[in-house]
Amino acid sequence: MAEYAAPLKDMQFVLKHVVGLDQVNTLPGWDEVTEDVVDAILEEASKFAGEVLSPLNATGDKAGATWKDGAVTTAPGFKDAYWQFVNGGWGNIMAPVEYGGQGLPALLSTPVEEMWGSANIAFKLCPMLTLGAVEALHRNASKELQERFLPNMVSGKWTGTMNLTEPQAGSDLSLVRTKAVPQADGTYLLTGQKIFITYGDQDYTENIVHTVLARIEGAPEGVKGISLFVVPKVLINADGTPGATNGVKCVSLEHKMGIHASPTAVMAYDNAVGYLVGEANRGLEYMFVMMNAARLGVGLEGVSLCERAYQRARDWAVERLQGRPVGVAGAAKTAPIIQHPDVKRMLLTMKASAEATRALAYQVSALLDRSRKHPDEAERRRCQAVVDLLIPVVKGWSTETAFEVASLGVQVHGGMGFIEETGAAQHLRDARISTIYEGTTGIQANDLVGRKVGREAGATMKGLIGEMRKTVAGLAGGEDAELRAIGSRLARAIDALERATDWIVAVYANDPGAVAAGAVYYLKLSGYAVGGWMMARAAAVATRQLAAGEGDAQFLRGKRLTARFFADHLLPQVDSLAESLMAGGALVRGADEALV
Amino acid sequence: MAEYAAPLKDMQFVLKHVVGLDQVNTLPGWDEVTEDVVDAILEEASKFAGEVLSPLNATGDKAGATWKDGAVTTAPGFKDAYWQFVNGGWGNIMAPVEYGGQGLPALLSTPVEEMWGSANIAFKLCPMLTLGAVEALHRNASKELQERFLPNMVSGKWTGTMNLTEPQAGSDLSLVRTKAVPQADGTYLLTGQKIFITYGDQDYTENIVHTVLARIEGAPEGVKGISLFVVPKVLINADGTPGATNGVKCVSLEHKMGIHASPTAVMAYDNAVGYLVGEANRGLEYMFVMMNAARLGVGLEGVSLCERAYQRARDWAVERLQGRPVGVAGAAKTAPIIQHPDVKRMLLTMKASAEATRALAYQVSALLDRSRKHPDEAERRRCQAVVDLLIPVVKGWSTETAFEVASLGVQVHGGMGFIEETGAAQHLRDARISTIYEGTTGIQANDLVGRKVGREAGATMKGLIGEMRKTVAGLAGGEDAELRAIGSRLARAIDALERATDWIVAVYANDPGAVAAGAVYYLKLSGYAVGGWMMARAAAVATRQLAAGEGDAQFLRGKRLTARFFADHLLPQVDSLAESLMAGGALVRGADEALV
Repeated sequence: MAEYAAPLKDMQFVLKHVVGLDQVNTLPGWDEVTEDVVDAILEEASKFAGEVLSPLNATGDKAGATWKDGAVTTAPGFKDAYWQFVNGGWGNIMAPVEYGGQGLPALLSTPVEEMWGSANIAFKLCPMLTLGAVEALHRNASKELQERFLPNMVSGKWTGTMNLTEPQAGSDLSLVRTKAVPQADGTYLLTGQKIFITYGDQDYTENIVHTVLARIEGAPEGVKGISLFVVPKVLINADGTPGATNGVKCVSLEHKMGIHASPTAVMAYDNAVGYLVGEANRGLEYMFVMMNAARLGVGLEGVSLCERAYQRARDWAVERLQGRPVGVAGAAKTAPIIQHPDVKRMLLTMKASAEATRALAYQVSALLDRSRKHPDEAERRRCQAVVDLLIPVVKGWSTETAFEVASLGVQVHGGMGFIEETGAAQHLRDARISTIYEGTTGIQANDLVGRKVGREAGATMKGLIGEMRKTVAGLAGGEDAELRAIGSRLARAIDALERATDWIVAVYANDPGAVAAGAVYYLKLSGYAVGGWMMARAAAVATRQLAAGEGDAQFLRGKRLTARFFADHLLPQVDSLAESLMAGGALVRGADEALV
Repeated sequence: MAEYAAPLKDMQFVLKHVVGLDQVNTLPGWDEVTEDVVDAILEEASKFAGEVLSPLNATGDKAGATWKDGAVTTAPGFKDAYWQFVNGGWGNIMAPVEYGGQGLPALLSTPVEEMWGSANIAFKLCPMLTLGAVEALHRNASKELQERFLPNMVSGKWTGTMNLTEPQAGSDLSLVRTKAVPQADGTYLLTGQKIFITYGDQDYTENIVHTVLARIEGAPEGVKGISLFVVPKVLINADGTPGATNGVKCVSLEHKMGIHASPTAVMAYDNAVGYLVGEANRGLEYMFVMMNAARLGVGLEGVSLCERAYQRARDWAVERLQGRPVGVAGAAKTAPIIQHPDVKRMLLTMKASAEATRALAYQVSALLDRSRKHPDEAERRRCQAVVDLLIPVVKGWSTETAFEVASLGVQVHGGMGFIEETGAAQHLRDARISTIYEGTTGIQANDLVGRKVGREAGATMKGLIGEMRKTVAGLAGGEDAELRAIGSRLARAIDALERATDWIVAVYANDPGAVAAGAVYYLKLSGYAVGGWMMARAAAVATRQLAAGEGDAQFLRGKRLTARFFADHLLPQVDSLAESLMAGGALVRGADEALV
C-alpha cells in the first residue's frame, strides 16, 4: 500500500502564488521565512510524514491505544515516532519563542500540520492538543505558572490536554460540574469526571499537563462560574523535579468508530491539586479564545483527509482494471477504472475538494498571521474580522467535505473499499469525528449566522463579497475562455451568497430560530462560494504562469482542470442551498416536536 | 437502548392509501390479501423484528461471524433466531407455492423485509440471498434440479448463496475465470476462487446451495462464455439423504467496516461437483434477470437504515438536554436538543427521507406485482417498463440517502455518536456497503441513463413525468395552501427532471461519455423528484383524511409536515443536480487522466 506523499507542488503554489507568502514574511519578525526556507521545511516535513507517520496509520488503527490498570499504552511505534517528532523540532514550530518555540507563522505551520493529519491523524492530535494547552497558558496564566510548565511542554518533554466535556456537559459547557475547592496555599483541589479527553493518558512522557474547566465552590451558576485550571499528572517540586502523583487518573478509554490510535480518555479527578489560570470564573472565555486556533486545526484535518483519501483512491483507480469505459474513444475492453467517466468524476470531486479546502485554510492562516503582527491596527482588525468570519466555514465546510470525499474514496474502491485492509474505510471512519469535535457543524453554523453575520448586519461578509467580485471582474474581462467560464459560475455563486446573507440580516433580528434552522445550508453555501473564489484565483495564476512559460506545466494544467470542475460540478449547489435556507427555516422552527 | 419499533402506521398508510393495496389484491390469486390479512402479517412481523432480531443487532456487530478451520460460526443468538424465523414461516413468504412457499405479493413482502433490515441487516442478508438463489433455480433450472433443491431451500432447511465475484472480476463479470469441466455423467467439476460471498458458510443448516458463475472449458471469452451452476456444500444422494462433502469450502472471512455478523466468505472450489442451470453460456443473462429483485432488496435496505437511524436519533434528541434553543419562545435554559432548530432540521431530513424512500419502494413493488400478474399484457408491459426504469433509482438513491441519513444520526448524537456503544455508528458502517453491492451507484446510474433512458429516447420517463404532472394539477387546483406550496415545488422538480431527460436523450447518441460522467447526478435528481411526487401524493391523502375526520390525526399532521419539509428543504437540490449534469459532463469525459 502506497504511503502518503505530500502534495508539495500544490502547497507551494497556493502558499507562494495564491495566498501570498509576501503577505506574511513582510511582517515584523518573519523576514527569515523566505521561499527557500519554506521549501526546505516543507520538504523535510514531507519526508517525516511519508516515512515515519504514514506507515503507522493502518497499524495504529488496528492495534489502537489500550488501557490497563489506569494507564494507557499507545499503539506500537507511536512512542518512538513521538520522540523522533520532538527531537526533529516539529513539536514547537508554532510555540512561543520565549519558551523555546520557533514562533513560525501559521501560514507555514498550516501545511506542515496538514501533512501530519494526512499521514496519521491519530498521531497528530497529541501535539495539536499540547499546543492548545500551551496557548491557553501562554495567554492567560501567571508568569510563575508559565515558567513552571511551558518550557517542558514546548520542548515536548511533557504533553498537554484540554479537559472540557463531562457526561452531562457536551456542547453546553455551562453544565460543567467538576468542583474546585480553594486551599490555604492558594491551590485548589479538583474533583469530578471528564470524558472525551484526547490523549488524557499516554506512555510517551513522564508528565501530562491537563488544562481543566471546573467550578470553584460557591461560584455563580452557568457559564459565568467556570474557571480554568492547570492540573499536572505528576506534581512538580519546588526545584522542578517530579514530585508526588496527583489525584487524577484515566479510568477507561472509549471504543470509537475511528482514530483508534488516539486514546480518548475518561478522566477521574479526586482531590487533584490544580492551579488557577488567570482570574476566577473566566475559564470559558479563555477557552473560547483558544478555540479559534483549535477550530482551524480541525478544519485542516478536513483538508488532510480529503488529500489522503484522494491519493489512495487515485492510486487504486490507475491500477484496477474493470470493464470498457462508456463513450471513451479507443478504450480497452478491460481498462483502468480511472477511465470510466463516473470514476473520473469522483476523483475530480475529491481532488478539487482537497485543493479548495486547502487554499481556503491557507488563506485564513495568512490572515491570522496578519491579524497578529501587522503594524497597522486597522489592518489587524480587518484581518481578525475576516478570520472570525471564516473560521466556522473552514471548520464546518472542510470537515463535512472531507467526510463526503472519504466516502467517495470508499466508493471508488467498490467492494474492496468496505474491506478494512484496503485502508479507504479507515479514512472514512477517522473523518467522521471531525464534523463533531471542537463544535459540531451545527454549532459552527450558528456561530456564523449569529455572532458573525446576524449581529453585525453582514458587514464583514459584505466586505468579503466585494473582494470576491473584484476577482470575477478580472476573470470576466480576460481573453481566456476557461477563466471567463469559471468567472461566470463564481459570479452566480457570489450572487447566491449575497442573497442568502441579505436574507439572514433581514430575518435574524425577528426570527433567529428560522435562521438557525437553515444555518448549516448557509455555512455550506459560504464554503462553496469562498472555495470557488480560491480556485478561481488559483486558475488565474496558473493561466498566467502557463502563458509565461513559468512553473510546472502539467501541474498548472491540472489546476485549471480542477478549478473548472469545481465551478461546473460543485458550485451549482449554492443556488439550492440558498433556496433551502430561505424557504424552509420557519417551517422547522415552528414544527411541533411531537411530529418530528 | 430502545429496540426497533416498526413504523406500522406509515407502512399501512402508504400501502393502503398511497400506493393502493387494491392495485394488487385485485390481481389473480391474491384476493385473500385483504387489509385485515396485511395488518395481521405486519403486526406479527413487527413483533419478530423488534423482539427477536433487533436485540441481536449490536451484539452481532460486536461479536461478528468468525472462521476457524474452514467453518464459520455465526454470532451468538443468530442460529437460534434463524430457526425461529424459519419456523415462523418468514423465510418463504415470497417463495413459489409449488415448492412450499406462500407466494405473497411483493407489496406485502416489501414492508416485512424492510422490518428485517431495520432490525438487523446482517441477519436479513441470509434469507434474502436464499430467496435470490431460489428464484434463479425456479426460473432457469430443470425440473429435476428444482425438485432436488427447492423444497429444502424454500422451507429454510438449507440456505442459498450467489457466487459471482472473483478477485479480478468485481463489477466486470466478463472476467470470471472459475472453470467448469464437463464430466461423462452430465455433471461438471468446478475449480476457482470466489470472493465477497455473503453467508458463503454458516452454522445454521446442514447444507448450503451455492449458485455459481463459471466458464465451461472451451467456452467463448467474455460475457458470452459464462454459465450458471448449482453446487451444494454437501452432495445429495439419489434418495435425497446427505452424501459426501463437496469440493467447496470457505477459506477465510473478510474483515469489513460493517455488517460484521454477516459472514463475507472467500470460497475455494476444488473440483467441486456442480450442475448446469439452464443452458450453457447463458449464466450472466440468468443472473441479471434475478438482479432486479436483488437491487430492489438492497434499495430497501436504504429504507430500513433510514428508519432505524432516524428512530435512534429521535429517541436520543428527546432525552438529551443541552443548551437553550435559538429563537424558540419559552424554551428552557437546558432543553431537549430536539428543540434546537438545527437538530430538528436533521431529524426532519431523516424522517422525510425514510418516508420518501419507503413510499417509492412500495410503489415499485406494487408495479412489480402488476407486471407479473395483471391479466392485460399491455398493462404488464407498461408496469414492467416503469419497474425497470425505477429499480436503479430505488437502489442508488435510497442507499445514498441512507448513508447520509445514518451520518446525520451520528451527528445528532454529537460526540456520543462516535462512540460505538451508542449504536448510531453501526448504522453508518452498515449503510456504507449498500451503495456498493448489487452494483455501485455509478453502475445503477449508467443503467438508468443508458439502457433505461438513452436507448428508448426517454419514453418511459416521459410517461412517468406525465403521471407526475397530473398530481401537480390536482394539488395546484385545491384549496389547501400547504398542498399548493408542495405542488409548486414538485412542479419545479418535474421541470428539472424533464430538462435533464431531454438533455440526456439529445446527447446520449453522440456523446455517451458526457452523459455517463453526470449519470449519478441524474439518478439523484430522479430520486428526489419521484420521492417528492410520492410525498406529495401522501400529503394529499393525509389532507383529505384529516378533513374527513378519518385516520390518526397526529400521524396525518406529521405526514403533511414531512411532505412540506421534503418539498422546501430537499427538493431544491434538483436544480443544481440538473445544472451539474448538463454543464459538466464533457469536461470530465475529455479530461486527461494524468491530470486527475
